[in-house]
Amino acid sequence: MIWLDTSEPGFETGFQALLNDGRDTTTRVDAAVAGIIEAVRKDGDAALLDLTRRFDRWNPPTAGALRVPPAELEAAAATVPAEQIAALQVAARRIEAFHKAQLPADISMTDAEGVRTGLRWGPIDAVGLYVPGGKAAYPSSVLMNALPARVGGVPRIAMCVPTPDGALNPLVMAAAKLAGVSEVWRIGGAQAVAALAWGTQTVAPVDRIVGPGNAYVAEAKRQVFGRVGIDSIAGPSEVVVLADAENNPRHVALDLLAQAEHDEAAQSILITDDAEFGRSVVAALRDELTRLPRAAIAGASWERHGAVVVVQDWQQAVELTNRLAPEHLQIMTSSPRELLAGIRHAGAAFLGRFCPEAIGDYVAGPNHVLPTGRTARFASGLSVFDFLKRTTWVETDAAALAAIGPAAVTLARAEGLGAHAMSVAARLELNDRRP
Amino acid sequence: MIWLDTSEPGFETGFQALLNDGRDTTTRVDAAVAGIIEAVRKDGDAALLDLTRRFDRWNPPTAGALRVPPAELEAAAATVPAEQIAALQVAARRIEAFHKAQLPADISMTDAEGVRTGLRWGPIDAVGLYVPGGKAAYPSSVLMNALPARVGGVPRIAMCVPTPDGALNPLVMAAAKLAGVSEVWRIGGAQAVAALAWGTQTVAPVDRIVGPGNAYVAEAKRQVFGRVGIDSIAGPSEVVVLADAENNPRHVALDLLAQAEHDEAAQSILITDDAEFGRSVVAALRDELTRLPRAAIAGASWERHGAVVVVQDWQQAVELTNRLAPEHLQIMTSSPRELLAGIRHAGAAFLGRFCPEAIGDYVAGPNHVLPTGRTARFASGLSVFDFLKRTTWVETDAAALAAIGPAAVTLARAEGLGAHAMSVAARLELNDRRP
Repeated sequence: MIWLDTSEPGFETGFQALLNDGRDTTTRVDAAVAGIIEAVRKDGDAALLDLTRRFDRWNPPTAGALRVPPAELEAAAATVPAEQIAALQVAARRIEAFHKAQLPADISMTDAEGVRTGLRWGPIDAVGLYVPGGKAAYPSSVLMNALPARVGGVPRIAMCVPTPDGALNPLVMAAAKLAGVSEVWRIGGAQAVAALAWGTQTVAPVDRIVGPGNAYVAEAKRQVFGRVGIDSIAGPSEVVVLADAENNPRHVALDLLAQAEHDEAAQSILITDDAEFGRSVVAALRDELTRLPRAAIAGASWERHGAVVVVQDWQQAVELTNRLAPEHLQIMTSSPRELLAGIRHAGAAFLGRFCPEAIGDYVAGPNHVLPTGRTARFASGLSVFDFLKRTTWVETDAAALAAIGPAAVTLARAEGLGAHAMSVAARLELNDRRP
Repeated sequence: MIWLDTSEPGFETGFQALLNDGRDTTTRVDAAVAGIIEAVRKDGDAALLDLTRRFDRWNPPTAGALRVPPAELEAAAATVPAEQIAALQVAARRIEAFHKAQLPADISMTDAEGVRTGLRWGPIDAVGLYVPGGKAAYPSSVLMNALPARVGGVPRIAMCVPTPDGALNPLVMAAAKLAGVSEVWRIGGAQAVAALAWGTQTVAPVDRIVGPGNAYVAEAKRQVFGRVGIDSIAGPSEVVVLADAENNPRHVALDLLAQAEHDEAAQSILITDDAEFGRSVVAALRDELTRLPRAAIAGASWERHGAVVVVQDWQQAVELTNRLAPEHLQIMTSSPRELLAGIRHAGAAFLGRFCPEAIGDYVAGPNHVLPTGRTARFASGLSVFDFLKRTTWVETDAAALAAIGPAAVTLARAEGLGAHAMSVAARLELNDRRP
């Protein structure tokens, strides 16, 4: 953990170090992944069966067995306690409502020259959703990735999840069912991404692949990009908490730890205008660490990447936050909306003393898939826009073309593109032989 | 050129070959590009000066000389003929109007539980625009890339353009001035991308880089992706023209050639319900080729990648078009809007017999930077959305948190994330010691 104070001489150097703390956990797996993708492209189902036997320690008798039959999905989901199903339903209902509000309107207009132009939104035909297996199989991620696709109108959502030793995760199956996933495949790793991108005899290809995964999955997504669309490759998570001394230090400590418990490479930063309050939060955090189930991970994250920054005023806090461009931002001051107005870069903001980031991970409604590692400078969280695409259109009759065509002819000639110029000029019966 | 007819037995095989005609022109330059980026990161301005001397054959005395001073930009622009300036102004006005119509509205809502949620759009701080030098320096591309950024509210647009032998392209300078570009740098290739992404002593870094370029520029964008955002890597261009026998074959031939003259790897496909009309178009095209300034390129593209597909009816044409997911689509039939309603995948559509694609390259208003190589299945043309990003927000007071918090606690516990659960439970004064 580092302690910085904007009033101290070494501040800028220390803050720069914080900005440059890349927390890079990338492993080079490109050759291994290229081999797996090549195998799936070449051998299709046979490669999937072989790789599943080797990596997931179970033996699918046929490629058909890689698909979870609806009855098995239902049976697994039925074992989930009612309280958890109810909680998933609250989450799904709220996520769906927030993403429905994002659905954009088409544009259609006619201008003074009689040119009709427009823009039409439409869903992607088929989306692949990768869900990690084992401990990191989060049902909340299934909802956050699949529901925006469904709200966007995507007709086919194919989910791939590894099932080590053949075991299904009931809560993940319940989430898949609730989110309206069309197909569930027990396929993991780079081979799942390859199958979704290229298709096999049994798995139909998709147009875009989303969802988190380990280094192999991330590298596989990079390698199939272009053949299909992909979402951003997420780095380790981070939170910036702006908190004044009116807060309960324990609440703030738990918010910092909630981020830290994800991953040793996660980062939690407290920015406060009160050094004494900052010290109370650090003390509360150390106290909570003695009881936390994931204390080893959270403690390592806090010691390696955590920070407390003491500022002179909230304007300074806003400026530093914009430089950090955090994935998550909590604003726990007396006027959080005012501060938010000055924030230019943040993935998601949580306003008020009773608005912990954890509600955003599950039930608030906005997406929890967010830009990490300062990419909020240019990137956004997952949304319905990730599952829609645009077609623009133009309609001109002879009169409208006569109004705007000559300018196109002039520019095409200036750029040396003779056929471009002539395709317009011929219709205008201009002197279309001049190239 | 291939001729396909849906009524003939070999059709599906031939059409599949058309779909799989990747037209891949990629050269492997990754190692060279990695070296250039490393040099710019390490040596900054000194590397830029050295690389500019080597690749662009002129000798900037200092790094400051890499920036085009406003007076020089004005002077270059002043040499452009008035007719061309007027045409650029028509284009700029129309592009600006169409992109303004895209500006999205923020979302803000309060639900039954008292939870306030919202989504706020904001511009990226700084955008880099790459413009190729030499023959491919298209002023229209400057407008199409810079104007959506300006409409989106991006305060800083830094343009890089190589100036071989030190010569500025007057029309490109005029377009930059008109589009409100903030800075123009005479830097090209991978070194320009590296300077924009990482910054040097003289060039301030940007957050996102857009614009076309050669293999080095494309690979450099790939390599800096993550540090900054990038637009899609464009492949060779393509057009599908749906045309019935009521059209002038020469008009259709010129539209096919307009695409073909871009690049030998470009692709032009005519889909018609009348084989006789198809033959007339091919004859007209061969005739036009005898007069076209870029006949060598256009002819090579047509012979290698061109196609005529004869269909039984327009429904069939729509289905084939959706499989092709073309960058550009012209619909020259009696009811183009009806056919467009069935098109799921196309970057931009041009409706009617007097609506050649070339007007979309210059003056129609919609963007001419479009998804190529069947990526319209999941990708869209450039728009204001490329220069905006979203911040979502949530605001809960104690009562609202009491309404939705318990479901978050249940899910956090089910996912084994103790601090997540406790950060909510502590505020609800639930039994927050149970991890």
